[in-house]
Amino acid sequence: MHLFYHPENPINGVIVPLDEEVKHIRATRIREGEHVGCTDGKGNLHTCELVTDKKNTALHVLETATFKEKTPRLMLAVAPTKNQDRLEWLIEKAVEIGVHAIIPILSEHSEKPFLKSERLQRVAVAAIKQSEKYFLPRIHELTSFQEVFTMNMAQKFIAHCAVDASKKQLNSVLELGKDALICIGPEGDFSTREIETAKQNGFIAVSLGEERLRTETAGMVATTVFQMKQLL
Amino acid sequence: MHLFYHPENPINGVIVPLDEEVKHIRATRIREGEHVGCTDGKGNLHTCELVTDKKNTALHVLETATFKEKTPRLMLAVAPTKNQDRLEWLIEKAVEIGVHAIIPILSEHSEKPFLKSERLQRVAVAAIKQSEKYFLPRIHELTSFQEVFTMNMAQKFIAHCAVDASKKQLNSVLELGKDALICIGPEGDFSTREIETAKQNGFIAVSLGEERLRTETAGMVATTVFQMKQLL
Repeated sequence: MHLFYHPENPINGVIVPLDEEVKHIRATRIREGEHVGCTDGKGNLHTCELVTDKKNTALHVLETATFKEKTPRLMLAVAPTKNQDRLEWLIEKAVEIGVHAIIPILSEHSEKPFLKSERLQRVAVAAIKQSEKYFLPRIHELTSFQEVFTMNMAQKFIAHCAVDASKKQLNSVLELGKDALICIGPEGDFSTREIETAKQNGFIAVSLGEERLRTETAGMVATTVFQMKQLL
Repeated sequence: MHLFYHPENPINGVIVPLDEEVKHIRATRIREGEHVGCTDGKGNLHTCELVTDKKNTALHVLETATFKEKTPRLMLAVAPTKNQDRLEWLIEKAVEIGVHAIIPILSEHSEKPFLKSERLQRVAVAAIKQSEKYFLPRIHELTSFQEVFTMNMAQKFIAHCAVDASKKQLNSVLELGKDALICIGPEGDFSTREIETAKQNGFIAVSLGEERLRTETAGMVATTVFQMKQLL
């Protein structure tokens, strides 16, 4: 069953899809009377009947199921790559594998990117529809690392490539069952100052394997390690 | 230090780069006299001095280091996606995280793809240069699943999405320190017959987490799980 997205509650049992969704519905060539799913990205899945003519499209809600968000939750803080394509790939993959939110961060060794936030959020919407998820990860606005340092999470990690005797493999130090915030640095890595400040704020310095990974690959590896840990 | 690729041994201490490499060298604007690396993809890293004028380019070998391939080794057998972009993306990411070979397989539920094998091998070459690896993973020609069934590997897994009481999480059944062959199915999953035949040939049926993943994401997750396991 195809899945569409609409952020608000049905009104009188009807969802009037947003323009992008109408385009998507038309592209799938689903016929009138067929059943489709529609999620609000907040855990609700409405099973609907498509009512359409050449002019208007609406989803008539037949039943609604409510899901709890999977826990524990992962927040990925990532210094965006210059190439926004790669960040979009990361959003798509992280959503597929399982992420609660993605926070693009401004770090010392990265140029201030021009983030098209609306587009990134649309990438996340497309990803939840394709992966059939009912929770839409929030893609934050560009955030300073200072602000990330002070975030409160059960576990906090900073992945970096510098020589650091205290660094452990994420796979070894991640505790299962607890929310986590994992910071992924830019191509030029986090600065010494950022790593020190993070540690002073309770972040554990980690490696993601033995290879030096691109930013978006590191983000996907971290997401995979987090989700796999929960299944052990 | 930039890394280039040349499949053959230096002749009289000189490597004459292939055309694509000359283009790459020119794009990096490395100057004459500067040092660059050149690998043959078989474990050798030649540190070279660039000798160039407007017409000719050559690498004069200063010294050669020989590396052993990291073990254990991972072979990823993947039913290619219709969209070759996604397979190329998987090759890039799998090389980055660590893979020995990728075998595109023809499975019952996938249309026979038109694989541009030369292009896929070039993607692998670009990936080892960017990730600074000295072993070039082999990208096989399209292979029948029958042939894959009879391959001899220390551990063999088939990842699929069907209901299967015998299925385990890859993360749990993978043994560290042993070579592995992991099969990733097409969007339509492996057929019942393929799964049964695989099991009869010693393949263990596995899951890659709890979500249904795209083929290329599944390949990346499997590669990550394999490499992370080795570090425990």
